[in-house]
Amino acid sequence: MNTALPLNQISATDAAAAIAAGKLTSEALVAACLERISQREDEVRAWAYIDRELALKQARQRDRETPRSRLHGIPVGVKDVIDTCDLPTEYGSPIYRGNRPTCDAACVAQVREAGGVILGKTVSTEFATRHPNKTRNPHHLAHTPGGSSSGSAAAVADRMVPIAFGTQTSSSIIRPAAFCGVIGYKPSFGLINRAGLKFLSESLDTIGVLTRSIPDAALIVEELSGMPSTSFDQVKNLKPRIGLCRTPYWNRADAVSQANLERAASKLAAAGATVTELNLPAEFAALADTQIAVSGYEFSRALTHERTRFPQLISASLTGRIAAGLKVTRTQYEAGMALAERCRGHIEDAFGHYDVLLTPSAPGEAPGLDNTGDPIFGLMWTMLHLPCLTLPCGTGPQGLPLGVQVVARRGGDAALFVNAEWIRHALG
Amino acid sequence: MNTALPLNQISATDAAAAIAAGKLTSEALVAACLERISQREDEVRAWAYIDRELALKQARQRDRETPRSRLHGIPVGVKDVIDTCDLPTEYGSPIYRGNRPTCDAACVAQVREAGGVILGKTVSTEFATRHPNKTRNPHHLAHTPGGSSSGSAAAVADRMVPIAFGTQTSSSIIRPAAFCGVIGYKPSFGLINRAGLKFLSESLDTIGVLTRSIPDAALIVEELSGMPSTSFDQVKNLKPRIGLCRTPYWNRADAVSQANLERAASKLAAAGATVTELNLPAEFAALADTQIAVSGYEFSRALTHERTRFPQLISASLTGRIAAGLKVTRTQYEAGMALAERCRGHIEDAFGHYDVLLTPSAPGEAPGLDNTGDPIFGLMWTMLHLPCLTLPCGTGPQGLPLGVQVVARRGGDAALFVNAEWIRHALG
Repeated sequence: MNTALPLNQISATDAAAAIAAGKLTSEALVAACLERISQREDEVRAWAYIDRELALKQARQRDRETPRSRLHGIPVGVKDVIDTCDLPTEYGSPIYRGNRPTCDAACVAQVREAGGVILGKTVSTEFATRHPNKTRNPHHLAHTPGGSSSGSAAAVADRMVPIAFGTQTSSSIIRPAAFCGVIGYKPSFGLINRAGLKFLSESLDTIGVLTRSIPDAALIVEELSGMPSTSFDQVKNLKPRIGLCRTPYWNRADAVSQANLERAASKLAAAGATVTELNLPAEFAALADTQIAVSGYEFSRALTHERTRFPQLISASLTGRIAAGLKVTRTQYEAGMALAERCRGHIEDAFGHYDVLLTPSAPGEAPGLDNTGDPIFGLMWTMLHLPCLTLPCGTGPQGLPLGVQVVARRGGDAALFVNAEWIRHALG
Repeated sequence: MNTALPLNQISATDAAAAIAAGKLTSEALVAACLERISQREDEVRAWAYIDRELALKQARQRDRETPRSRLHGIPVGVKDVIDTCDLPTEYGSPIYRGNRPTCDAACVAQVREAGGVILGKTVSTEFATRHPNKTRNPHHLAHTPGGSSSGSAAAVADRMVPIAFGTQTSSSIIRPAAFCGVIGYKPSFGLINRAGLKFLSESLDTIGVLTRSIPDAALIVEELSGMPSTSFDQVKNLKPRIGLCRTPYWNRADAVSQANLERAASKLAAAGATVTELNLPAEFAALADTQIAVSGYEFSRALTHERTRFPQLISASLTGRIAAGLKVTRTQYEAGMALAERCRGHIEDAFGHYDVLLTPSAPGEAPGLDNTGDPIFGLMWTMLHLPCLTLPCGTGPQGLPLGVQVVARRGGDAALFVNAEWIRHALG
């Protein structure tokens, strides 16, 4: 454990080891996080709900127990589209003001079972779509933290909590993580159980995490999924085969982000990676529109209760997207799903030549507060069900963080962790 | 409309046409269903909750409106693992006694939007697993209606409601429908939106319906999914290519059911179908165990809140299955998912030679009340994500209904409807 750091800044991995060794209490850790929140929350607005006493009570209970797992005593933030039975869950919508679910979502109950502490609920955009909520980018309060996992990204970036759950249907983990300068990890589709998640698009919605270190992301998903524990010792011996993938949407990235990604690729080659360009078959260019059609078909149905009973409480932007989604025919939807299936086959074959792909996380640095930014660089990868991780790399013209995205084959989450960690070291 | 039938016995298709033509009111139809329920519910016990006044109020409201869809004014039963905002939703578990969700499930809200009437909640086994609930088989009260869609099957069979939602993860629509002598239809995976369903196993759970006619099953799924309306006029001109599929589990069926299926195949050949035997590749034999492993891995996580907070309120049988599910490693789970994916490819190829497959619905007629019967003949097809429909065919040694199951390629739900309707006519 890096004892030079204030408690609210240390990684979950280090903190859990210190707790297990009797050198740190969960209560002290949680108190430090709460103290940071009380200093900064007025400005950052990352939290939908915090119950300080409840968090401390959980921590004290953990301190009386033998550690249950590698997550024991660690505070976790929960995006407010994921149900909690002891804290309100409002899905980022005024329709659900004060809503209190009966049951914890599976991932929340699993964190508790593993000995974690639910610190509070982080702000989501409206139903995890694009309409901004109150959160601000901790690097510059006049900028968006991105969305839809706005609060999770801002809270982790601002050292309020080491780990927070996010969800991604378009680019709702990768984009805010990049904008806030933290690790954002969207697992392979289905790795974290989704029971108790407010569904937007059931064939795309993926629960993941925002953290400040890659081992922290690995830690929580390993505990929840039962996948084998990743050894990061192997990282120093890796010689990754990296596919530089500009994607069919390359011209949506600004010049600074394009140069940033290309500079990163050069650095990785210089550090010993084999970097070659991956040009995707032409039909991949349709995947972004396919994601929009498929998710629209699904969320316009998933939100039927809300759109029929409370149309006046739905934002204009979501109302427009619902109307578009209802116009997607079943035939169009099935054609989109079939295209995605074919492309999943192509990309699986391509991974015969690459350990991971390197690709943009977002078109540029965080824009202003009136929108959560362009999700374009998440759509295709989410549609392909691949595990993705963004890590901070460089800054934009206004000094805000930029990220690069690392993508692995479906089910290759462990390879994603170690190769991304190698990349992180190589980028310095 | 067959005016010789009492109102509670007519099909949804006929009733909706009569309502649209001004020859029938939704109120009269709903009242007839409620009357049947009040006569028979003490014995059949199909309903978890009915609010008579609320049902009639919805019907009267529908009668004041221009018909919204082909479902206008039709009463629908909702399996009690699907959320309703105006009726309790107890998931078949004492943990959720009196639970009242904030939000309708998507399929429920869609039925309301289409002008349907939510008649009440039908009994589910515990969390849609195998532990029996109170429902009895309307053909013989000492026998199980099957599970987990117990109440939906019994209510439709007993002419209490023309359509009821069921869900299937193993064989929870097909088996009870066969035992109760009605149509059970499990759509292609994902055809009906699952937002607001209590998840058991997210890669398998499928919402479907129990009805007394195949056009009724088509009607509701077409309204909800937006798939094109099926024309049943073509049925008389069909010459189906039917694959007789005994499955690797054939010896689990009793002699009467085996002979019943073979007799059905002969009848269909005599009626003009091309019937040939489909022998599946050897690896299909592992799909039943794969379904058990994959669903166990998933439901043991999905039910984390319940199993950690209320272990004493979970049945012994489910407790045992949860313990087994927690022992399934992620590696085993992924191997099972990979096998399923390979077999999905094989079966898609096989459908080049067949319009539909004919296969057992259940190992025999309904057993006694102490268990809901063996789901074996559903496991493989659910794992393959294929659309399945059971229709009544023959009776067992105790005079209880038997069914035969018709299976189509993924996405071939319309072909399933018309070929199954042809089969129904041919079987007489």
